[in-house]
Amino acid sequence: MGLDQGIDVEQSVGIVKTEYAHFETELKLESGRLLSPFTLAYETYGRLNNERSNVILVAHAWTGDAHAAGWHTPDDRKPGWWDNMIGPGCLLDTERYFVICSNVIGSCKGSTGPASINPRSGQPYNLTFPVVMVRDMVRAQARLLDRLGINQLLTVIGGSMGAMQALEWGIIYPDRVRSIIPIAGTGKTSPMAIALNALARTAVFNDPLWKKGNYRPEHPPADGFALARAVGHISFLSDASMQLKFERRFSARDGLFDFFGKFEVERYLEYNGRSFVDRFDTNSFLYLAKALDLYDVAWDFDSSDEALTRIECPSLWFAFTSDWLYPPNQTEEVVADLKRLNKPVTYHLIESDYGHDSFLVEPEKFTPKVAAFLDRL
Amino acid sequence: MGLDQGIDVEQSVGIVKTEYAHFETELKLESGRLLSPFTLAYETYGRLNNERSNVILVAHAWTGDAHAAGWHTPDDRKPGWWDNMIGPGCLLDTERYFVICSNVIGSCKGSTGPASINPRSGQPYNLTFPVVMVRDMVRAQARLLDRLGINQLLTVIGGSMGAMQALEWGIIYPDRVRSIIPIAGTGKTSPMAIALNALARTAVFNDPLWKKGNYRPEHPPADGFALARAVGHISFLSDASMQLKFERRFSARDGLFDFFGKFEVERYLEYNGRSFVDRFDTNSFLYLAKALDLYDVAWDFDSSDEALTRIECPSLWFAFTSDWLYPPNQTEEVVADLKRLNKPVTYHLIESDYGHDSFLVEPEKFTPKVAAFLDRL
Repeated sequence: MGLDQGIDVEQSVGIVKTEYAHFETELKLESGRLLSPFTLAYETYGRLNNERSNVILVAHAWTGDAHAAGWHTPDDRKPGWWDNMIGPGCLLDTERYFVICSNVIGSCKGSTGPASINPRSGQPYNLTFPVVMVRDMVRAQARLLDRLGINQLLTVIGGSMGAMQALEWGIIYPDRVRSIIPIAGTGKTSPMAIALNALARTAVFNDPLWKKGNYRPEHPPADGFALARAVGHISFLSDASMQLKFERRFSARDGLFDFFGKFEVERYLEYNGRSFVDRFDTNSFLYLAKALDLYDVAWDFDSSDEALTRIECPSLWFAFTSDWLYPPNQTEEVVADLKRLNKPVTYHLIESDYGHDSFLVEPEKFTPKVAAFLDRL
Repeated sequence: MGLDQGIDVEQSVGIVKTEYAHFETELKLESGRLLSPFTLAYETYGRLNNERSNVILVAHAWTGDAHAAGWHTPDDRKPGWWDNMIGPGCLLDTERYFVICSNVIGSCKGSTGPASINPRSGQPYNLTFPVVMVRDMVRAQARLLDRLGINQLLTVIGGSMGAMQALEWGIIYPDRVRSIIPIAGTGKTSPMAIALNALARTAVFNDPLWKKGNYRPEHPPADGFALARAVGHISFLSDASMQLKFERRFSARDGLFDFFGKFEVERYLEYNGRSFVDRFDTNSFLYLAKALDLYDVAWDFDSSDEALTRIECPSLWFAFTSDWLYPPNQTEEVVADLKRLNKPVTYHLIESDYGHDSFLVEPEKFTPKVAAFLDRL
């Protein structure tokens, strides 16, 4: 469905274009390694006001990109990934706010990552790309804001890995954010989440086409990568959402007693895994999984408290009842710590059956609370 | 630790031997296919009384076997898989009860399964083995009881796939069971559980050594199978149990910023997956996964009610709070149905952090309730 057949053109930012900011200066990474040059892909929606005080940064999740809203061409099948959130009259009202979404470093959607050419070798980085942390992603975003002449953000909002970025913004750049809104986040990735990512990694490593990361882009390790994606996919869903969507329906094409017969849920995972192979770079997926695994708010501080105490702005948190990847108790732990440290913090547990993906599937359940929060700033 | 160093020899059944019952008559499977001949591996503990009225059938889970208690040799490193439950003075007191545990058909632990030789071809069945259902496993067990001259069971007790067998016993042979005790079970496998099994399947199918099931036993698809096992392993654990066991500890041998650096939880899953490859047949694993996926109490009945209404005996059910593979609400659904049908049913939700594996890890949390139930029979 292209823009011209869209139902809500009034609330759309319309046709947008991804911009690219190139940086020749070095980005010093948490690992101690230096990344230079580097590029950040980003999009902006709305207009920067004269005071430069109406800027909202949208931080994307694992496999997201800079294209958060609008359409690249009138024939696009889909708008940006958070299109229902961003536009004239939307929650992130582009009549009022200047919204920026930047693709993180380490990704493959226009920013520098393992699939980028290493200028020193003329070859793709592949596994010579440095391991990056969420904090590195945020430092790179700060460079982009410098470039755009923006000193302070009204808020940083994001779900999942986007929530981690929002939290890091509050910790690393307390003077540059007036608020943060982490959704479906965690203060540190749990062993369960790490274990799931380990399955995904192994699925890729087992694929002979992976060649230790030196696959040709046109011959990716499709079998392993599709399986890796399916692991992730399951962790974003929930028992209830899968029940709603698939029940125990068996593929009409297969016999129940065929060894290779499939339930509908299997077909769905397989189809989605396969189509994902064409949309994302395998090494990037692995590097971002690593960044997720390494996420711990206490990193490079003496304690989690030492990190959290740096936050100066109000924070607004959301968790979803059926999220078993970053379950509510993980968000609640950070919220409790912030309260104990006398930080202004608001938390809402949202009833939803859509698991970790709830922040994408049922935004209407939390957007009114975000709107009220932004209005009070 | 062998028997002679054991701490509780008093409560052990001691040295035991696996027996094998061979059947030349055909077993008509739910698929319509016939299996013959077939063998069931089984062990017994305690003595059959003169009235033949003290028999308890223990039903094992996915990768279990007939060796539920005792030691095969004094040098064994481990006793049977439910050794703490079975023995003189134990819950399943071998001074009182005659306990039978039989390896299910489709498995590779002595009963006929895909790794068995098909007498018609002289070759292993591999994928020519028929797809079996839990009901088929139970029908085969009934043959074993016939052979042993046992008409009625005091109870059938089992966790996970064992719970499914217990339930099927109540439905298919209502006159042969005086009670059933399904633990951590479900009335029908959920799409989430099927999806997890689909990951495991795909992990094997992706392994070039699998060869559509025609691998040589000495060259199994080890990479894919170890990954498949890791998928299962994660689903048996819980967020809390992994937190207790691993936290976010990083392998002391790796650098945090090594691309291939591992968290302890990853090493553990990898080690266990690898060692499992030597202990289980890949095709068997897949066939039993299929049996789990196909499990639906309503199978071949007009409805779940029609199936459940056949049960005549009291049933005792347990679910565990942290079990996300067959979560408590799935057990509660069956229990509610049984109550509505005026069946004598008792249900206990057990607080445990050990996920689906709780029935193996913390039996002391439910055994007193089982003992009281058995005493009342």
